[in-house]
Amino acid sequence: MTSTTGRVVAALDGARLWAELHDLAQLGARTDGGVARLTLDDNDIQARLWLAEQAKAIGCQVRVDPIGNMFVHLPGTDPDLPPITTGSHLDSQPTGGKYDGAYGVLAGLAALRAFREAGVQPRHSLEVVSWTNEEGMRFAPGTSGSACFTGVRRKDETRALTDADGISFGEALDACLTRLGEAGIERCPLGTPMQTFIELHIEQGPILERQGAPTGIVTGIQGVGWFECEVRGTANHAGTTPRTARQDALEGACALAAALRNAACDDEDLLRFTIGRFQVFPGSVNTIPERTLFTIDLRHPDAGTLTELEARFQALAAQEWAGCTAALTPLSRIDPVAFPEVVTDVIAEAAAELGQNAPWLVSGAFHDAIHLAGHCPTGMIFIPCKGGISHHPSERIDANDAIEGARLLTATLCRLAM
Amino acid sequence: MTSTTGRVVAALDGARLWAELHDLAQLGARTDGGVARLTLDDNDIQARLWLAEQAKAIGCQVRVDPIGNMFVHLPGTDPDLPPITTGSHLDSQPTGGKYDGAYGVLAGLAALRAFREAGVQPRHSLEVVSWTNEEGMRFAPGTSGSACFTGVRRKDETRALTDADGISFGEALDACLTRLGEAGIERCPLGTPMQTFIELHIEQGPILERQGAPTGIVTGIQGVGWFECEVRGTANHAGTTPRTARQDALEGACALAAALRNAACDDEDLLRFTIGRFQVFPGSVNTIPERTLFTIDLRHPDAGTLTELEARFQALAAQEWAGCTAALTPLSRIDPVAFPEVVTDVIAEAAAELGQNAPWLVSGAFHDAIHLAGHCPTGMIFIPCKGGISHHPSERIDANDAIEGARLLTATLCRLAM
Repeated sequence: MTSTTGRVVAALDGARLWAELHDLAQLGARTDGGVARLTLDDNDIQARLWLAEQAKAIGCQVRVDPIGNMFVHLPGTDPDLPPITTGSHLDSQPTGGKYDGAYGVLAGLAALRAFREAGVQPRHSLEVVSWTNEEGMRFAPGTSGSACFTGVRRKDETRALTDADGISFGEALDACLTRLGEAGIERCPLGTPMQTFIELHIEQGPILERQGAPTGIVTGIQGVGWFECEVRGTANHAGTTPRTARQDALEGACALAAALRNAACDDEDLLRFTIGRFQVFPGSVNTIPERTLFTIDLRHPDAGTLTELEARFQALAAQEWAGCTAALTPLSRIDPVAFPEVVTDVIAEAAAELGQNAPWLVSGAFHDAIHLAGHCPTGMIFIPCKGGISHHPSERIDANDAIEGARLLTATLCRLAM
Repeated sequence: MTSTTGRVVAALDGARLWAELHDLAQLGARTDGGVARLTLDDNDIQARLWLAEQAKAIGCQVRVDPIGNMFVHLPGTDPDLPPITTGSHLDSQPTGGKYDGAYGVLAGLAALRAFREAGVQPRHSLEVVSWTNEEGMRFAPGTSGSACFTGVRRKDETRALTDADGISFGEALDACLTRLGEAGIERCPLGTPMQTFIELHIEQGPILERQGAPTGIVTGIQGVGWFECEVRGTANHAGTTPRTARQDALEGACALAAALRNAACDDEDLLRFTIGRFQVFPGSVNTIPERTLFTIDLRHPDAGTLTELEARFQALAAQEWAGCTAALTPLSRIDPVAFPEVVTDVIAEAAAELGQNAPWLVSGAFHDAIHLAGHCPTGMIFIPCKGGISHHPSERIDANDAIEGARLLTATLCRLAM
């Protein structure tokens, strides 16, 4: 290990990080042990003020941009260079856990503190960002902060989103910005340049846990296609209609679903095929179903594979299924992102330096990093979570993994910023 | 043809029957051509009063029993013999057709009128009954009148049923009985003896239409078992969970449903297997289903076959399906009824006498006859309906079939009553 990286990583206070994760989880704590810290609600604002206090204690400036993204800034020796930025998000699902998002922000803060403690000032400035509304639960869709920051979505569009009570994102944001202004937090513009963005996050899947690895290097975020499939048959009397006279839309849908599932069954187990919503009409015990409607969530790291499979799906849907017709409609498509080797290699070198077993894996879930990848060289680091469970109060991580992940982030920032 | 049967059948006024079917359909007529004549509503009461008027015009007495079943009585020469009874019901589905139920009552009335016109008084009295609440839509369950008449259900239990507005069957019945009393209709007791009961009805299935037969002889009413099946898996993230780490409750349910369906696939096409309700939880596009709940409606004319198949279903449900567990719960079971040959043979002889191609078939739907079968020798005659469609405004029958069915009923009553 280089002496500088060694000093900074050695200065990382893992116990404090672990304690802070649980302190922060008090803001929006649920009685079931989970967290409900919804975008721009009072808990989210309290979390932002808490973040600002922590930053000031390290002697870092805190700024907020017009969509509410917060940046903790540790100046480098060369003020002309764009910053190396890390971070994630502080909002949660309504029945969320303590670590999804919060871990990446707090580990970034711990890394900045380690630089200060070690008395190391990097060449590039370091920044910790907390992106606004990653989860998209109070205001849908999510990743609002990173999407507006990178120009993927328009600010006025996002401000016009409303929650279930009719409150607009813009109203909620302005109230939050006023509170932050009163606390002396300055404003900064959207879309400022970054040298590199690194997001540290819990995996939300079982791969690292299965491999017994404390950290993982994310090679990219898989692409996703959403589809809706409608199967149309004929409603009829369950007691009087012979099998040979039926066009049963449930029988057809089950057969088509099995064929689609089979088509998406790859040896590498990289394809993710999920039918999550499946509705049968009219839904009466003694009536043969006339219509079944189901969704498909299809993911893969390679855009070509998604496109090929969509064509196979269309060919299957064009067949007759139990005498029924089917129609497959694409609902949305987001292409995969592959993180550049210039970033993943740095993370791999840092992991090797720390002696960590850090396997390469693809992110199955979305992250703000998907938008940042179009803005600057971007990478992600994962740590395992118990049973791959997230978006649930029972979301859990191991303290040692949390510390190893923060060490890998710190070592990576050292390599990128020095 | 015997000269008596020939005279009575010749006196049957088919055109009048056809006209009356459409006159009666005005009571509760829907703008879409269907009928909504719900049990004991004003249209049902009007229909009862209309029936009483028709009966009086023939010179027949009309009586009503304590559950509202109405009996039109044509006296036989031997008043000590129990009557030969025919009939069906005058209530309809909320989006019902013109013929389901009404056809059997009106054809019975036409038969009585033919006896009068031909000047033939049979040895047994003849009766036309209209059973109360066959459909069970305003007050569930249905077949209330025949079930209470035959002692299958208790009158006080049925009176306690309430409709969606909280009105009890008892209240609605008492209001109806008051109206009928004001019209001079006398009361009669429940459970009076019958020599034979014959119900004429539309098939509500496609078999006779497929065979081009104007009438059919019903050998029995198939038995039905209702089941609920629950498949339990594990909810997880659609994007992050590898195929090999999934317990997908929809995948499991589709596989189990296909295996159950396959087990119920008989060469004779007599088994009726229907999954009508199928619900998937949590029903989110990007969450692997953790639970699927579906119903099974299973029918067959043979009780042993139903019992054997239930055992096979239980064995299948005990297996693992896509890593999920399943549980099959019986909800209800009604054993099949086989009509006695002493009745079906008489109908067959009458059909032969009329030169009708009247195939034998099993009723897939319930009818009041299922309860009467425990009270006296019972049989049923079917006529085809277009596309097998019933319980729908588009329910249609052919005028010639309607008349052929009434002729077969009349000839059968002649054979039974003389």
